[in-house]
Amino acid sequence: MTKRVAVILAGCGVFDGSEIYETTLTLLRLDQLGIEYRCFAPDIEQHHVIDHRTQEVSEGEVRNVLTESARLARGDVSALDELSADDFDAVFVPGGFGVAKNLSDFAEAGAEASVFEPLKTALAGFLTEGKPIGMMCIAPALVPRLLGEGIAVTVGNDPGVSGAISAMGGLHRSCGVDDIVVDLEHRVVTTPAYMLATRLSEAATGIFKLVDRVDEMMA
Amino acid sequence: MTKRVAVILAGCGVFDGSEIYETTLTLLRLDQLGIEYRCFAPDIEQHHVIDHRTQEVSEGEVRNVLTESARLARGDVSALDELSADDFDAVFVPGGFGVAKNLSDFAEAGAEASVFEPLKTALAGFLTEGKPIGMMCIAPALVPRLLGEGIAVTVGNDPGVSGAISAMGGLHRSCGVDDIVVDLEHRVVTTPAYMLATRLSEAATGIFKLVDRVDEMMA
Repeated sequence: MTKRVAVILAGCGVFDGSEIYETTLTLLRLDQLGIEYRCFAPDIEQHHVIDHRTQEVSEGEVRNVLTESARLARGDVSALDELSADDFDAVFVPGGFGVAKNLSDFAEAGAEASVFEPLKTALAGFLTEGKPIGMMCIAPALVPRLLGEGIAVTVGNDPGVSGAISAMGGLHRSCGVDDIVVDLEHRVVTTPAYMLATRLSEAATGIFKLVDRVDEMMA
Repeated sequence: MTKRVAVILAGCGVFDGSEIYETTLTLLRLDQLGIEYRCFAPDIEQHHVIDHRTQEVSEGEVRNVLTESARLARGDVSALDELSADDFDAVFVPGGFGVAKNLSDFAEAGAEASVFEPLKTALAGFLTEGKPIGMMCIAPALVPRLLGEGIAVTVGNDPGVSGAISAMGGLHRSCGVDDIVVDLEHRVVTTPAYMLATRLSEAATGIFKLVDRVDEMMA
């Protein structure tokens, strides 16, 4: 039977949405392995819009997370509130600042961050059913809030972010760009991706390894 | 000496910009081969903005091609008028409707299409110097207008588009999603990508083959 996974997006673009390359590489590897995927995103306004040329806030501009995520999914995206863990064998959350701005306020609040509750609800089903959860880049920083304390994750070696993870009750393990951290008990797999990558091929190595490992862990 | 190539973008999103997966796969393969790349896009307004969830025009919304292309380049993009063939060994144009809407009016005008003149100027340098030109998806439809008549290209097997290419004086050759068409005389390499692809891994096969072939053709 074909394995099916959900991929949760947070917009389209590294500075205010989902990281485009991380998402594409995740989907590529899934497809190469013959795993079906479906993309989901919340139907909410983006925290803000960043001009990716100047990296400044584009004042007055409003974009919707689900609508922009549709760009990354070639139009084939569902609202996050339609996601049920019963329909999938695993779930992935690529990185990008959208995860820290739209799916949480981690970018501003750090260790005091709160998360978008419907995301927590959606992931709880996977956690409870022991279905693997793959997260990359900045997304693993949300694990203590989204999945609970005491789960080993990596964001690479950033002292600020790893300190915040610890302060929230998480466990941070340093990790190279080409490697993954696996919490076998909680079935959570993480990789630094663009927290460390300086080249697309570097990000690909870690992300492919993450997808391959999640594939192995699926029942 | 490290090879260097230019990649010309037309926005960010299949329906009004550059196709995200085609662009990412092109850059991934270049990086895997150790080839440096730089992205370029024109500093002009998009023809329109398409809501990628509904595929309808987002009335009143205005976006800039260079600014949106910056999303696809993680901020690292230059204005098209700064592109000189002297600085690069080859050039690539990924597909997406932005090529047929922002870099030309092919989407509306078909065989009567005109092209964005600064793009024609930028590509002329590569053509004159015999530096390879790689194009994919709908982009090869512009070859008769951008590079001249009698150059063999493919967009897969779409009768309407291949008919328009013929009507403009081009040569269209049918081609599978996993293959490329090479015009050795003019050093133009094309592949159907998402003109035919139904899966990301299919697009990857043809695009990787295209990049590999352009790599071989670089001096």
